[in-house]
Amino acid sequence: MIIILSPEATENDLQELIGNLKERGYGVHVSKGVEKTIVGAIGAPDEDKAVIAEQIESFRYVERVVPILKPYKLVGREFHPDKTVINAGGVEIGGSKVVVMAGPCCVESEQQTLETAAAVKSAGATILRGGAFKPSTSPYSFQGLGEDGLKILAKAREATGLPFITEVMDARDVELIARYSDILQIGTRNMANFPLLREVGETRKPVMLKRGMSSTIEEWLQAAEYIAGRGNYSIMLCERGIRTFETFTRNTFDISAIPAVGMLSHLPIVADPSHGTGKWQLVSAVSRAAIAAGADALIVEVHPHPEKALKDGAQSLRPDKFQQLMNEVGSVAAAVGRSV
Amino acid sequence: MIIILSPEATENDLQELIGNLKERGYGVHVSKGVEKTIVGAIGAPDEDKAVIAEQIESFRYVERVVPILKPYKLVGREFHPDKTVINAGGVEIGGSKVVVMAGPCCVESEQQTLETAAAVKSAGATILRGGAFKPSTSPYSFQGLGEDGLKILAKAREATGLPFITEVMDARDVELIARYSDILQIGTRNMANFPLLREVGETRKPVMLKRGMSSTIEEWLQAAEYIAGRGNYSIMLCERGIRTFETFTRNTFDISAIPAVGMLSHLPIVADPSHGTGKWQLVSAVSRAAIAAGADALIVEVHPHPEKALKDGAQSLRPDKFQQLMNEVGSVAAAVGRSV
Amino acid sequence: MIIILSPEATENDLQELIGNLKERGYGVHVSKGVEKTIVGAIGAPDEDKAVIAEQIESFRYVERVVPILKPYKLVGREFHPDKTVINAGGVEIGGSKVVVMAGPCCVESEQQTLETAAAVKSAGATILRGGAFKPSTSPYSFQGLGEDGLKILAKAREATGLPFITEVMDARDVELIARYSDILQIGTRNMANFPLLREVGETRKPVMLKRGMSSTIEEWLQAAEYIAGRGNYSIMLCERGIRTFETFTRNTFDISAIPAVGMLSHLPIVADPSHGTGKWQLVSAVSRAAIAAGADALIVEVHPHPEKALKDGAQSLRPDKFQQLMNEVGSVAAAVGRSV
Amino acid sequence: MIIILSPEATENDLQELIGNLKERGYGVHVSKGVEKTIVGAIGAPDEDKAVIAEQIESFRYVERVVPILKPYKLVGREFHPDKTVINAGGVEIGGSKVVVMAGPCCVESEQQTLETAAAVKSAGATILRGGAFKPSTSPYSFQGLGEDGLKILAKAREATGLPFITEVMDARDVELIARYSDILQIGTRNMANFPLLREVGETRKPVMLKRGMSSTIEEWLQAAEYIAGRGNYSIMLCERGIRTFETFTRNTFDISAIPAVGMLSHLPIVADPSHGTGKWQLVSAVSRAAIAAGADALIVEVHPHPEKALKDGAQSLRPDKFQQLMNEVGSVAAAVGRSV
Repeated sequence: MIIILSPEATENDLQELIGNLKERGYGVHVSKGVEKTIVGAIGAPDEDKAVIAEQIESFRYVERVVPILKPYKLVGREFHPDKTVINAGGVEIGGSKVVVMAGPCCVESEQQTLETAAAVKSAGATILRGGAFKPSTSPYSFQGLGEDGLKILAKAREATGLPFITEVMDARDVELIARYSDILQIGTRNMANFPLLREVGETRKPVMLKRGMSSTIEEWLQAAEYIAGRGNYSIMLCERGIRTFETFTRNTFDISAIPAVGMLSHLPIVADPSHGTGKWQLVSAVSRAAIAAGADALIVEVHPHPEKALKDGAQSLRPDKFQQLMNEVGSVAAAVGRSV
Repeated sequence: MIIILSPEATENDLQELIGNLKERGYGVHVSKGVEKTIVGAIGAPDEDKAVIAEQIESFRYVERVVPILKPYKLVGREFHPDKTVINAGGVEIGGSKVVVMAGPCCVESEQQTLETAAAVKSAGATILRGGAFKPSTSPYSFQGLGEDGLKILAKAREATGLPFITEVMDARDVELIARYSDILQIGTRNMANFPLLREVGETRKPVMLKRGMSSTIEEWLQAAEYIAGRGNYSIMLCERGIRTFETFTRNTFDISAIPAVGMLSHLPIVADPSHGTGKWQLVSAVSRAAIAAGADALIVEVHPHPEKALKDGAQSLRPDKFQQLMNEVGSVAAAVGRSV
Repeated sequence: MIIILSPEATENDLQELIGNLKERGYGVHVSKGVEKTIVGAIGAPDEDKAVIAEQIESFRYVERVVPILKPYKLVGREFHPDKTVINAGGVEIGGSKVVVMAGPCCVESEQQTLETAAAVKSAGATILRGGAFKPSTSPYSFQGLGEDGLKILAKAREATGLPFITEVMDARDVELIARYSDILQIGTRNMANFPLLREVGETRKPVMLKRGMSSTIEEWLQAAEYIAGRGNYSIMLCERGIRTFETFTRNTFDISAIPAVGMLSHLPIVADPSHGTGKWQLVSAVSRAAIAAGADALIVEVHPHPEKALKDGAQSLRPDKFQQLMNEVGSVAAAVGRSV
Repeated sequence: MIIILSPEATENDLQELIGNLKERGYGVHVSKGVEKTIVGAIGAPDEDKAVIAEQIESFRYVERVVPILKPYKLVGREFHPDKTVINAGGVEIGGSKVVVMAGPCCVESEQQTLETAAAVKSAGATILRGGAFKPSTSPYSFQGLGEDGLKILAKAREATGLPFITEVMDARDVELIARYSDILQIGTRNMANFPLLREVGETRKPVMLKRGMSSTIEEWLQAAEYIAGRGNYSIMLCERGIRTFETFTRNTFDISAIPAVGMLSHLPIVADPSHGTGKWQLVSAVSRAAIAAGADALIVEVHPHPEKALKDGAQSLRPDKFQQLMNEVGSVAAAVGRSV
């Protein structure tokens, strides 16, 4: 931790600060410049650094505190240079093959789900996606079929051989959903729902952690650290767009987050171009871009009849458009030395 | 709902759309301009408007859908013009008196809590705040004392007569916390935690709903609608700053949200200048501003020793600075025809 | 400047860095922690710090560079603790009296301008505002009357005794506008138009520098530094709202910027609640808030007939509403020890 | 234009509005729903729609006005479906070949420029970039060599055969720079510098218009409309990242803007991954992504010695890394049916 003193700090203030830091077990280095004095505090590794930084910042003669260490050790790349590969129902994520997860936003009926599962499988997807418990901004919107939806997804898995991913919104549902599902999805609104993170951390199911719509990359990695801290290391991160001032798209897909996560963490990275754009017309282009930038997987909303979808109709692809996306993505994957 | 067609839409497309809308029970009006055709769809009030809008937007010849009705009826002002006044442990929020809630970010110990409670009471606060269950971005930070914290808050209430507000983060804790607390706080990270909203909606305790750090005012009102939809109308909204590109402050306090909520909703509005700024030096100025803009209450972090606080030290006021804030706020409240 | 090395930096890298820094004239302090090495570089005050920081950051074994000194010396408070008071056409800005500037967005005609000037004067405004050269997002919108507009403003000044402020968008117009106007306004789109900043810096006219709609407070102060660097110290800063994800308001008025500028700079601060909200219904509340937070002045759009205004009709107040605003603002100013 | 009335609007209000609209030459359609009345106003195509919308919005009984037509006709795709191909010094931009522009942020010396020009040419770039007039947030930073820089760029063109692009910041410099340069660049800070846009619109030089760092796609297209409105149709748009809350990258590169511009406009689209990320480690990944998403060109900062660069060292590639980028981009271009 580096501490920058205010110009009005006196010699007494400096001595008080040094005493305080030494009491906490820090080694202290002082550098006096022409205009500013800076104090480096090193060591004391077992205490809570964020808290201490805030305490020091409350000193009246302290201008600013700059932390030095990254606040995520388990999911960070510094101490775990090798990329993690996750096995989800027999499909590997994070290896050389690019994985495509596809399916409807919501499970609406058995027929719709089976029809979509067959279509995405035939186009080349290897994991089925579908929501049974749905978050919805409006209390008056469709909230999902619940356990009946899970049963339909399990049927679709039986029929097609595709493992499936589905969202868990409530810590109380983790056990139930983990019984059915191959991957647990944490949605963007729950990235900082810490009780839920701890609960999925207690399972040994793979987890896909979506980035909070206003979370920095660092906060996202700290959320993954919550899960890893409970012993579950099978975590993939999913970039799904962040909230900005632009309104033409539903979110702004942060393409740089893909190589940035690759720099900072050993976890696989998934791209969600459907929520990332909110417009079916842009989904293929952003899918190609994500693979070109190094994403390990895609998760794409596909619906046989978007005009009747109970949610996200405007961003869902029809099966024929999805087939075209798969072809395009295959070419781009080959160009970056991978396959689909 | 108003539907704007793409320039390439044909007469057949238009007829198909009209048929589709009539089947759903809408009355339809068509206006053909020189360059664009627009279709108004009126009625069909019992269905889910947001879903239908998304479905219609997925039509290939539709450029844009514009919704007309506000998606929050219970908490909106259109059908409930009178301001709501909430009684929380004997203190009225939303009436002519401005209410100040104050106390430490976290309950750390009995002594710290009792000392702070006595100090804020003597300065004029009428509700005590304090966290027992704490959300924390880092898994390595202090997470609160849990039920022991609630017991300490209850003791402080007994000692001072101040009712208290505390945060609930987990739907499984609602019953426990509601047994102790006078007001249930939903934090910014949980504004869109719908299972939690439903659970507090089932209680009859007053709820303070903080704005999500990247939520629009409209989404915030829809979150309140979740609570009201379960029969709990004792909701106050709390502006605590939104996330923007500015880094000098921890968040950007959206002062316009205060009169905006007053225009759109009948619920009382609370301002949190501590999280809204993240810097103790700015708390008084933003408190004065919030009251001048029409806030019904403030919630302020106070700690007897910010340099030892387990959380939020940098934004906590010492008791003497809080006393000064109360004096300043009192003058401003009087200037806008209210009292503290 | 503090330099944090990557974990993979070797002893050789460190020695190379030290050599490089010493060659540039820096004093160097090294602190080796358990996991990271940090290097403090002190001195060498005459070179360009921002450039050197970027160069050092490009070293492959450097993780991050943290600058220490604030990049604005002339407008910063550290070396000029006393608040600046500006005299603009006989009106003092930055003193104990709160100043209100008011008038139409655009000068549309002599009659409209004279009528508005008389109205705002009678309500208590002491400076007239009005645009003769107008920036407009659409090339098809009204672009202002140009020099004819300046002549009308000068007539209004003669008629009412109110000095006036008007915007300059083009470095080539500075001399012309400075001949007529009492204050030169730099608009939000031109905050980082450096040739224009230099040009107004060459005049000795008071300048009101609006914050760029996506500028941090630090960048804004650096823009002011451009003007001061040319010898013109009569600068006032104007907070007019920043761009965020919220769409209910046109911009998000950053109320914290008012006390923050007071902490960081000695320049007077003006609030523009008209652009800050974009909605006439919110203008009074945000005006009161700005004064309560410590603003030295307001700039408010007033139009006798908003429904016929050539620009900004939706955010302009009618004279009767403006009178009411003046009354409210007067009470709040008194509550914070000032007058209007 | 569609007008949504407030619930409290009376029949008289409605009649007044209809009268007002008819007077302006509009055809009017009224739709009365159960809870809201909406009014469609069609026609009157020659007036200023944005202004009228604002005037109507200022009516006290109007809740909201929704514009229908896109505010950019010349650069929009609706009336010009064919993609524009620009010829800049013999290089075609917007055709099937992907163009790479590369070079230093600033022209610092003849040697540095010639060395870089030779290196980027040998790696396959076909246009040289380099700044002679530089915008700089700090007044104390390097501001460019001015006309001497242009002369050096011209020498580099002579030596390598590469046409060059350079930035123009000041309307007074347009003529000078147009005499030397093959493409005029408008930087992000000047996207809404309307006098400058008009001035480059008067030339017949190709213009590259960077997106404002907080501009929506629609505002960006309107800025291009300013240039086209003066008769210069050789405009390319450059996505260079927008400002968001994320701080790990310098800007957030909006990958969706690339296909979005393709939907909305016929102009070629260029990607700037150097400013879009601010980190040399991310430049290749974002370059590949941009080409995969459909970009027509890249503009990349290359410096032989980033650790000595006078600007943007942290985001500049060394020639060997740039060569690697070219190889990677070539593969991705082939995968989407283009070549480099």
